[in-house]
Parts: sequence; structure tokens; C-alpha cells
Amino acid sequence: MIYADNAATTAMSKKAIHAMLPYLDEVYGNPSSLYAFGQKAKEALEAARGRIAACLGCEAREITFTSGGSESDNQAIMTAAALGEKKGRKHIISTAFEHHAVLHTLEKLKKRGFEITLLPVHENGIVTAKQVAEAIREDTCLVTVMYANNEIGTIQPVSEIGAVCREKGVLFHSDAVQAAGHLPVNVNEQKIDMLSLSAHKFHGPKGIGVLYAKRGILLESIISGGAQERGKRAGTENLAAIVGMAAALEEACAEIDNNAKRLTALRDRLIAGLNKIPYSELNGDAGKRLPGNVNFCFEGIEGESLLLLLDDKGICASSGSACTSGSLDPSHVLLAIGRPHEVAHGSLRLTLGENTTEDEVDYMIQAVTEVVTYLRNMSPFWRDLSTGRRPHVFAE
Amino acid sequence: MIYADNAATTAMSKKAIHAMLPYLDEVYGNPSSLYAFGQKAKEALEAARGRIAACLGCEAREITFTSGGSESDNQAIMTAAALGEKKGRKHIISTAFEHHAVLHTLEKLKKRGFEITLLPVHENGIVTAKQVAEAIREDTCLVTVMYANNEIGTIQPVSEIGAVCREKGVLFHSDAVQAAGHLPVNVNEQKIDMLSLSAHKFHGPKGIGVLYAKRGILLESIISGGAQERGKRAGTENLAAIVGMAAALEEACAEIDNNAKRLTALRDRLIAGLNKIPYSELNGDAGKRLPGNVNFCFEGIEGESLLLLLDDKGICASSGSACTSGSLDPSHVLLAIGRPHEVAHGSLRLTLGENTTEDEVDYMIQAVTEVVTYLRNMSPFWRDLSTGRRPHVFAE
Repeated sequence: MIYADNAATTAMSKKAIHAMLPYLDEVYGNPSSLYAFGQKAKEALEAARGRIAACLGCEAREITFTSGGSESDNQAIMTAAALGEKKGRKHIISTAFEHHAVLHTLEKLKKRGFEITLLPVHENGIVTAKQVAEAIREDTCLVTVMYANNEIGTIQPVSEIGAVCREKGVLFHSDAVQAAGHLPVNVNEQKIDMLSLSAHKFHGPKGIGVLYAKRGILLESIISGGAQERGKRAGTENLAAIVGMAAALEEACAEIDNNAKRLTALRDRLIAGLNKIPYSELNGDAGKRLPGNVNFCFEGIEGESLLLLLDDKGICASSGSACTSGSLDPSHVLLAIGRPHEVAHGSLRLTLGENTTEDEVDYMIQAVTEVVTYLRNMSPFWRDLSTGRRPHVFAE
Repeated sequence: MIYADNAATTAMSKKAIHAMLPYLDEVYGNPSSLYAFGQKAKEALEAARGRIAACLGCEAREITFTSGGSESDNQAIMTAAALGEKKGRKHIISTAFEHHAVLHTLEKLKKRGFEITLLPVHENGIVTAKQVAEAIREDTCLVTVMYANNEIGTIQPVSEIGAVCREKGVLFHSDAVQAAGHLPVNVNEQKIDMLSLSAHKFHGPKGIGVLYAKRGILLESIISGGAQERGKRAGTENLAAIVGMAAALEEACAEIDNNAKRLTALRDRLIAGLNKIPYSELNGDAGKRLPGNVNFCFEGIEGESLLLLLDDKGICASSGSACTSGSLDPSHVLLAIGRPHEVAHGSLRLTLGENTTEDEVDYMIQAVTEVVTYLRNMSPFWRDLSTGRRPHVFAE
């Protein structure tokens, strides 16, 4: 099997699994308990918090543990909204190609009377700090722009956006679920006020994430109850997963440059190979993208058929986000970068990971080429394109 | 070490750990992915859902996975509130001694214009169906009463309350976090519309829970984003924990009668032993309580000192909920059953588990007796009681 869906989820690193095991087994105490056995758990919890803070360039007390990226995104946005509401500032700026954890939360706020500006995305899959600066108003309470897109992998100019927001006194949140562990993050230097991440995207366990919030930002609870996480996130702490996440993030950050270098070479080899398929095009900027992300559109192809035939060849790939699989709508990300409906349906995302080899890349190039050719030969839509009854979207 | 804080959290069962391991390691696919490797994960997810449904007497599609009991409680209440709001019904009935995951969510709703009736709790730690029936109004949209109290372990008449609610057409939610796996639950027979549970209270992993919602109840998302859990709970599914939870719940339910019988005998032995300490009293009904729950008040004792000295003797115990530890306020549960402030501060909760032995119980009786005597001898408050300068609360 060739696993090329690392943007959907990753295999846990052995280090992270081994870090977790004692906390699934003998060290099971509740960190909120007074006795030494509980305090041992508490110490592990706070050590993990400190280690994660060190990876992100912030203080331990600025880290809140959540159940994952979606919860972190929801809580960050709800926090900014609550703070904004108190000051009569009910305008939020985001982008048209955010993750649904952001977009759906913004829709909720729209019903509560917030005005939402979704910045259009350039054809290369990037929004600019200039766009953000121009959209900021007196009543803007939040700018939320993802660090790197989950489908096409394009990296946003978060440092520049952070600088603009800081200067104008507007909170800046970034969904870094795809970026953390893969791209350098330093929330202080980058002037990021809130940041979301999810452990299973960097070889940590599922079901655990982080919301970083700069000191002074009073988080709004979305899960109320006990006094865990300084009263801002109720529920007994998921210690095993937290410790596993800390181990995975440290490991990823320690190797971030090496991994990026190796993955970028593999990625560019894969892109070059797939570019040879006629009437195909890379989605998103060729350079400013995650080291492991390849996303192509192929004219005349249904994404689902492509995936199923690649699966037959042992390749795990996706057409976009796993979160929206099963949906027949074309990707909102591909529409946002201007792909027409008919090709937005035919996208393929291959996301490489630390375990991907050059042989696997070559095999994928061959397999995708074969499958695309095969499907096109069967497709009436393709015949229409070939005979000129429909216009091509891409050059040959 | 004697672990007597099973109400705070439990040791994972070996079966549950072993069930989880493959999903932390080789079976890491995203259940929302189309390829066979993802579908294998999806099958495990749905099998776990079915197994949990079987334990609760409901259908698989009525089970939603959450990050734990607090999230389940929050989502259940927010769901009933959203449904009620649409019909202009903004009155909710609960009890004074619910878990904070319920009480704090109700406080949020109060700010949104809901009226909350908190039923008083009888001295024995039980509310009656009659109280519920009398409190229900035309505009009541929800009754939420816990299955068993987390501090004093008293079991509420949920079947009778369910019958009252069903007859009056009011939704009934029960926080069964302390009950699931320890007391028989059958949501259909008991006419429960929504039910919360948390795996780590029955030897499953932390960070995972269930919200059961009867078919036809449209859940309100509190974490928005991807389309997981039929669009009602966003975030990549925490499959390893879900599989671990299913294994733990099945194991607990298979042994529920045997465990209850054995634990009840140990519990009653412990209660009898502690009853010999002068000026002490059991909190909550002696019979209608969780098989493993013992909760005492000792006159003239500070709970924290008691716990620390018991810790020195190797006993892990608590004075109440782990969720509120660190707070100097007396337990809202003990105040609700009418304990005066001065004794509510001196409570001790010992919660036995499947691993507790008779020898451990005898050791605990001896240790608590010694520690209480020692602390009383040092306490000016106790001297006031002994010399008659203050009146006793309990009989000798």
C-alpha cells in the first residue's frame, strides 16, 4: 500500500505511541486529583504543555488542550466574537477557501448578526496581506486566515497578515492544522494571536488538539463544566493523547528542515511527472505550497472513479478534504481559485509524508497516468472535448 | 497504592487497551476516506457504534461520538434549547446537584432568556418523579436529571422520570456518566431521550464519550466543521478511543451484575466500618447508591488535610468531584442535601472499583479512623465541639 493521504491523517510515529502507552496503562490518575498519583499525571500534563509551547514559541499558559483542530477553530472564532460583541465590533474577515470548521462557525455568527467578509483567493491559491489590510474596518473584531490550505497546500503570508492585524489592533487567528509540524511556526514572531492545531496531522494521535491564545485573550468556553484548562475547556484531560501529541510535535519540529527538503524534492518530482499528462494542471502555486502537497485537476475525469481505480492499484489518495467526502459538490477550494465546475470535480490530492519513497512517487506517476488515460477513453465527456464539441479548459 | 477514586477516573481494562492498539498503530486511515484502507477504519467505527448501541438498548444511528461526558451534556442541553426556542418553550427543569457540565450550560442558557428550575434534592440525595411532574409547565422544553450523582452516588428514579416526561411530551436527558457500565441502562425501556456517557469512568480511555439521542431529535452541533457523525459533530473520528470505549463498555455490561454484587458488599463493609467513627455520617441514601460509592462527612475535619494524610498512607481518595478540586467552596452537592457548610467541608469520597479487595477496604477503615482521630485532636474547632462551646451536627 502507498499511503498518499497525509493531509487527511498520518500514521502515528513510534515515539508518539510509546510516549502514550504508560498513560493508557499504569499512570491513569486524574490530573485534577490532590493525591500524589494524580499529581504525577498533572506533572506530565504540564510538562507536555511546556514542550508544545516551546515548539510554537509561546508560553505554556497560552496553550489550551482541545479535542482537535475543529474544536480549536470553533473556540478561537467564538472567543473573538464574544470579545467583539462587547465592544460593538461585529465584523469578521476570512477567506473563501478556509476549512469548514472555520466557514461553518462563521455562518453561525452570521445568524447572530455578524458581518462576514470572505476574501477572494488569487488563482495561485493565496490571499495577500494587502487584501486583509484593505478589508479591515473600524468594527472588525477578527481576521482568520489559514496557515496552509488543506486541499491545495498553498501557504498564506501569515507573518505579513499578522503584522497588519497587530498594527490595526485586530485579533488574528490562523488555522495551522496543515502547517504545524511541517512548516516553522513562531506565534510571537509571526504576531499570531490565536492558532489551531491537530495532533493527527503530524503523526500524533487523533482526538487531540491545541488552541494557542495569546496571554490576555479570555477564551470563551464552548464546552462548559469542570474547571480544567483554567476553566476554559471542561472535561477530564486526555492525558495519554496530550503526551503523544507533545512527542509527535517535538519530533516533527526537530526534523522540520530535513523533512521539508526531502518532501519538496519528492513533491516536485511528482508534479513534474503528472504535468506530462495532457490537459492537466496543478492546483495552487507551484512553490508556495506544503512540502508534501500535490493537487491536480484532470479534464474529463470524475474524481471518485479516479480514486477507486488508484485504490485498486494500492494507492490511498483523495480528491479533497476527507471531511467533505461523500459530498457530490465540487470543492469550495477549487471553485475559490477559479476552477470551473467541470474540472473541479476531477481533482486529485496526493499528500506525501515522511515515509514516502522515490519509488513510490514514480509508481504513482505511472499509475495516475494509466488511470487517467483509461478513464478518458471511457468518457463521453472526453470524446466531446476530443472532437471539439466542447472547449478544453487546460492547454495540452 | 489503594486506588479508591474510581468516580474520578478508572484504570483502563487490559481488553480496552488491547482493542485500541491496532488503531493507534497500523489501522490509522481516516474513516471518511474512500479507499479500502479508510473504509476498514470506517467499518471499525460503525462496528463500535453498533456494539455501544447494543449495550444501551438503542439503534446504532442514535449514537454520536463526542470527546467525553462534558461535551455530551453540553450538546444535549443545547439541542433541547434550540428545539425549544423554535416552539417558544424556554423553560428547563434540572436539579440542584447536577454535574457542572449541566449546571454551567444551564447558566449560559439563562443569559439567553431561558428560565431554569433546579429541583431541590431530598436529604437522602434523591429527587422524585413527582417533583418533576409538578414542575413541568406548558413551556418546558427539557428535563435533565442525572442517573447517579458523581459525589454521593445516589441513584435517581430515571425510569419514573422518563415516564412522566414522555407522557407530558417533554424531552428527557440524563447524565449517565457515573452510571453507564455500573448500573443497567436501557434507554428505550427507561424512556430516556438523550443520555451522556464517558468512557474513562468504566475502564475505557479518556477523551471519548457518547451522546445518545433518540431518533428524530435533530442534534445541534457545538463543534461545527466537517460532515463527520452525520454532520452533528465535526472533527476526524477518534477511532482508537472509540474502539477502546466499545470494548470497555461491553466488558463492563457483561459483568454488571457480578460487579455490582461484589462491590455492594465491599461498599457496605466500608460504610459499616466508617459509621463507627463518632460524629460522622454517610452522605446520601444507604441503599439507592452506586455499588462502589461511599461518601462521608466527619465533623471537625478539613477535607484537604484528610486527603493528604490518607495519601501518605497510600490511599487515593477525594473529597468530591475532581472537576472542582482546588476550589475552596464546599460541595454544591452536599449543600443541596442540606449539609451545613462546616461539615460539607469535611467530606470524604471513597469510590471502589473492580480491582478493590476486602483487605483494602479493611485497611481504609483503619486508616480513615486513625487520620480522623489525629486531625480532630489537633483541631481547635473540634475542641469547641468537645467542650460544648459549639453544638454537634451529628449524633455520636
